[in-house]
Amino acid sequence: MKVAIVGLGYWGPNLLRNFNALSNCNVQTVVDKREGLFGKFQALYNHITFTPNFDDVINDDEIDAVVIATPVYSHHPLAKAALQAGKHVLVEKPMTSTSKEADELISIAEEKGLVLMVDHTFLYTGAVMKIKELVGSGELGKLRYFDSTRINLGLFQADINVLWDLAPHDISILKFIFNEKPVSVQAVGASHTNNGLENMAYLTVNFESGMIAHFNCSWTSPVKVRQTLIGGDKKMVLYNDMEPSEKIKLYDFGYDVKTNEEKNKIIADYRTGDILVPKLNSTEALLGVAKDFVNAINTGDKPKSDSELGREVVRILEASQESLKQNGAEIKL
Amino acid sequence: MKVAIVGLGYWGPNLLRNFNALSNCNVQTVVDKREGLFGKFQALYNHITFTPNFDDVINDDEIDAVVIATPVYSHHPLAKAALQAGKHVLVEKPMTSTSKEADELISIAEEKGLVLMVDHTFLYTGAVMKIKELVGSGELGKLRYFDSTRINLGLFQADINVLWDLAPHDISILKFIFNEKPVSVQAVGASHTNNGLENMAYLTVNFESGMIAHFNCSWTSPVKVRQTLIGGDKKMVLYNDMEPSEKIKLYDFGYDVKTNEEKNKIIADYRTGDILVPKLNSTEALLGVAKDFVNAINTGDKPKSDSELGREVVRILEASQESLKQNGAEIKL
Amino acid sequence: MKVAIVGLGYWGPNLLRNFNALSNCNVQTVVDKREGLFGKFQALYNHITFTPNFDDVINDDEIDAVVIATPVYSHHPLAKAALQAGKHVLVEKPMTSTSKEADELISIAEEKGLVLMVDHTFLYTGAVMKIKELVGSGELGKLRYFDSTRINLGLFQADINVLWDLAPHDISILKFIFNEKPVSVQAVGASHTNNGLENMAYLTVNFESGMIAHFNCSWTSPVKVRQTLIGGDKKMVLYNDMEPSEKIKLYDFGYDVKTNEEKNKIIADYRTGDILVPKLNSTEALLGVAKDFVNAINTGDKPKSDSELGREVVRILEASQESLKQNGAEIKL
Amino acid sequence: MKVAIVGLGYWGPNLLRNFNALSNCNVQTVVDKREGLFGKFQALYNHITFTPNFDDVINDDEIDAVVIATPVYSHHPLAKAALQAGKHVLVEKPMTSTSKEADELISIAEEKGLVLMVDHTFLYTGAVMKIKELVGSGELGKLRYFDSTRINLGLFQADINVLWDLAPHDISILKFIFNEKPVSVQAVGASHTNNGLENMAYLTVNFESGMIAHFNCSWTSPVKVRQTLIGGDKKMVLYNDMEPSEKIKLYDFGYDVKTNEEKNKIIADYRTGDILVPKLNSTEALLGVAKDFVNAINTGDKPKSDSELGREVVRILEASQESLKQNGAEIKL
Repeated sequence: MKVAIVGLGYWGPNLLRNFNALSNCNVQTVVDKREGLFGKFQALYNHITFTPNFDDVINDDEIDAVVIATPVYSHHPLAKAALQAGKHVLVEKPMTSTSKEADELISIAEEKGLVLMVDHTFLYTGAVMKIKELVGSGELGKLRYFDSTRINLGLFQADINVLWDLAPHDISILKFIFNEKPVSVQAVGASHTNNGLENMAYLTVNFESGMIAHFNCSWTSPVKVRQTLIGGDKKMVLYNDMEPSEKIKLYDFGYDVKTNEEKNKIIADYRTGDILVPKLNSTEALLGVAKDFVNAINTGDKPKSDSELGREVVRILEASQESLKQNGAEIKL
Repeated sequence: MKVAIVGLGYWGPNLLRNFNALSNCNVQTVVDKREGLFGKFQALYNHITFTPNFDDVINDDEIDAVVIATPVYSHHPLAKAALQAGKHVLVEKPMTSTSKEADELISIAEEKGLVLMVDHTFLYTGAVMKIKELVGSGELGKLRYFDSTRINLGLFQADINVLWDLAPHDISILKFIFNEKPVSVQAVGASHTNNGLENMAYLTVNFESGMIAHFNCSWTSPVKVRQTLIGGDKKMVLYNDMEPSEKIKLYDFGYDVKTNEEKNKIIADYRTGDILVPKLNSTEALLGVAKDFVNAINTGDKPKSDSELGREVVRILEASQESLKQNGAEIKL
Repeated sequence: MKVAIVGLGYWGPNLLRNFNALSNCNVQTVVDKREGLFGKFQALYNHITFTPNFDDVINDDEIDAVVIATPVYSHHPLAKAALQAGKHVLVEKPMTSTSKEADELISIAEEKGLVLMVDHTFLYTGAVMKIKELVGSGELGKLRYFDSTRINLGLFQADINVLWDLAPHDISILKFIFNEKPVSVQAVGASHTNNGLENMAYLTVNFESGMIAHFNCSWTSPVKVRQTLIGGDKKMVLYNDMEPSEKIKLYDFGYDVKTNEEKNKIIADYRTGDILVPKLNSTEALLGVAKDFVNAINTGDKPKSDSELGREVVRILEASQESLKQNGAEIKL
Repeated sequence: MKVAIVGLGYWGPNLLRNFNALSNCNVQTVVDKREGLFGKFQALYNHITFTPNFDDVINDDEIDAVVIATPVYSHHPLAKAALQAGKHVLVEKPMTSTSKEADELISIAEEKGLVLMVDHTFLYTGAVMKIKELVGSGELGKLRYFDSTRINLGLFQADINVLWDLAPHDISILKFIFNEKPVSVQAVGASHTNNGLENMAYLTVNFESGMIAHFNCSWTSPVKVRQTLIGGDKKMVLYNDMEPSEKIKLYDFGYDVKTNEEKNKIIADYRTGDILVPKLNSTEALLGVAKDFVNAINTGDKPKSDSELGREVVRILEASQESLKQNGAEIKL
């Protein structure tokens, strides 16, 4: 199998390194308009062709699959062209700028029988795989909340707000571990720049069952926090991605709420038990992404981070943007 | 000066201990309907009268001031009766159940020339006093955000939701350090009990200047977090109340945002410098509350935690409740 | 049963409070030469007699037991007098200034059939009880090391060095969980004052089996550390007493060492598995001490923190002092 | 300038990468007996010659300098051969297996006018440079102690004990920041393998002035600790190398010790003030090593991590080994 990588910005070189490490696929071509970047990569990968022309990929019949790691606004046109040329596509997160664009890509991929996958890398980490296992086995019980904080003094993006930049990670994790369809979203935020793009924002996603998800995202925090609390009615998980190894803590903690009929009062019984820090798989997540993509092409199996999940993430982001515009009004999904 | 304490629940005994420790006031009477509680306190404070009748306080002309530490719904009737009897009043937070009730108490106190103060204890901690000093001196620059998290596996309240229970601490701190009037609030949350009271909720308070405040409150977190980030355009503060001594970190961190005219892009320059962990005053905060109340009575000076601040906290809570009812709609203040 | 407490310094008031809380014993008398201290205690405990004369205890036939919380040098004469007067004795740690003194007290107690117990409070904490359970059940395997750090910016003692002040806690824990007799000790340290008493010191205790114990004690650290690592050949424990609740972590970590015959090289296989943070009993430890003392008197059962353990702690401290004098020379026990 | 790298084990590839990144020197040759390793490096560095023969370096007149990253026992013969062939030498830590070997290398280098440098990488980190600055400026006052812990579940070495493996880092830091000559050492430890090499050990280094240094090293800890406390009589430093960015904390903490003449008692006044977390230089340390070596060759300037410092580290390790043999006896330096 022959693969092309498009984009040598922040993430592209990592994709290049991992696809290059696979034994069952070859990176044939790398595309970036900034030819000045080629030198150092050419030295490392002297068997690969570097070109500024995306058409060199489209017109190369030997290339089976295209990996797109460019700014968000270009995901749709590039992926569409690649799919129409009969090539499988792995596209960076978020999948597209609008859910309509996502719909169109999904249609084309289905029509042509091609794999369309989104690089939600976190789904391939040992930590998230462990959370999925814990939720899936019923150990947490019924999920009640998902509370995520992803803040740091970060790279302001010039074309998207902080939710489009940071929340895809956490929304994709939520979708991955929790099946229920969300019913609405609310988002509030603030822009401290003159272009009106929010540099900090809070997103809430509501579910019919009473489950609530909340995402705190900021580029303007002096401390870096990457933390998610996931509460079930049996057990709860703390996922702290800043911990070098002890990323997941499983709390055998809970509460039972009873209403005392007579006094119309709640009596809550608290339960605190042991805490388990499970050993996690430590393979590089992005290698898992690359393998899953190649495997999906070879076997027809659905990848973990499939286009449906990618579209759902875009739908929620899109609705969050509408909510931000309407000062936090609830937007139905 | 002679003082009465009303309520021997969770907080009352602490008030009793601290007022009893003051040299310039005497605790004369303690009131609680649960007479069974009196034994152990009587042993510790055998010079004090314990009674189940609040009227014993109202009718005792020797008593100058009344300290009220009862459930929220009773704050207004008890405080009103005490004020009407010509007694100064210190009432637990939140001041009242509605801003109308707060207005009424403030009117009576003004009319009668009495001190009316609210026990927002945190304003008297070394940490919050240091934050006020840092903000007041201009060291942080213009405030941009206030982001607070106050979560734990906590005592479910039977009559109020989690915002009324936990957010008064953080809203009072915000009001104490930041003068600007808020323009609106939004609140979302979830109730996982059968009485409909939210056990987790997120409150946003918006300001004309672009400043944004956010409060994450929960009784259902397996970990206890008491953390606030305060961002100025010059420096930023992390206030972690779970740290035994290093509660405040002052970050000489910031960013400058410039718009590149040609490309319509933002170029942000990041600045990370030293971090300072200032030494804090370690006096017990509640002793400071007691002293400030007695001092206000003796001198006529305004206490730090005055009735205006208390009313503002209630107004924001009241608006948050309206927003919760309207699924997070923006409520103007 | 009637009890006397001797000494109202740092620890005495805690002993008083806990013995006073027991239903099956009464505190009859409290002794301290500093009569000026009596006022505030008398207010709290108005049924108890306060006296500056230790003889009031010795001559009071109603008193069954004496609790001694005075400076170390006075432990022996006071305990001896109490035992000779037929009273059971609980003495603060370290038991005595020399092992000869300890021997003498043990002889008298045995002869008279009296309980002689030492207040090594840590043995009654939930954390240490859990460690004993883990070691006792064989879960850790064979113990290999015990590495303790107990440092802070602390109260310099005027009559004893830092090892006599701080190490008794950790040595008593070691003795409590590990049966093997130590064979020798080494100690090094430094005095930065003009009285020659070490304010920081390092103690090593050696065992026949290859087990090694090390104690790092200091009054001159800017950070407070209370941490012990206990390594078995199956699992290992981290005991961090500064953690508010997660004090014990059980690591399913280990290594197998094999010698590769051919190359005379070691090949070590590492194993890292799950980590467990067990729930701990949270009763106040000193209440456990008081109960164990009263129980030992009533039933004749051996207390956990018995006089043998107390003597062993003194023997190790005594040898450490000899080693310090001889510049760290190994002192056989 | 042309450089050869000898050894492609754990550290060699890092040296290769950093020397290759320098603009004012070229890596000409890489030596390792394990030819099987060459493939992947050849792909990355296709302009470099890889050879199993060290003689190819010795006999190549174009090569100016040799970087030796092989097992400790081979440092001396390889470095000697290189120096005798007129080549500058950078050798991994510890410099040699004995101080006699170090003496010999220093003599040859001096005689031939060649640079002989030891790769004590830590001296080139932002953290250690900041500590040196703080000590050098007198801000800490007179140094009183240096207390280092370097433990983890680590790579057992087959030919050296844990002190030779881990302590060189901390001893080199001590020598770098503190000029006074040590007078003696003591070392104790334990071996839990069948080859008698200590896998955990404690080293004390004593100074005339009362300064004391202690090193806690282990390959058998379930947690990774890399922490050093440096106490001056004015201020103190905590250096925690596991912190991603806040590695250094400067404590404005101290104590004054006075002897109360009358009572022969110590009265210590404690002082706790602010804590500063200074911003650190974040350049890769090993790049600093490479630059310093090349600069020393070009300019004749003494490198920071010079051969004298390297020899001192070996002298202390050598004495520690003698002390271990004599069960912790004090060994004069």
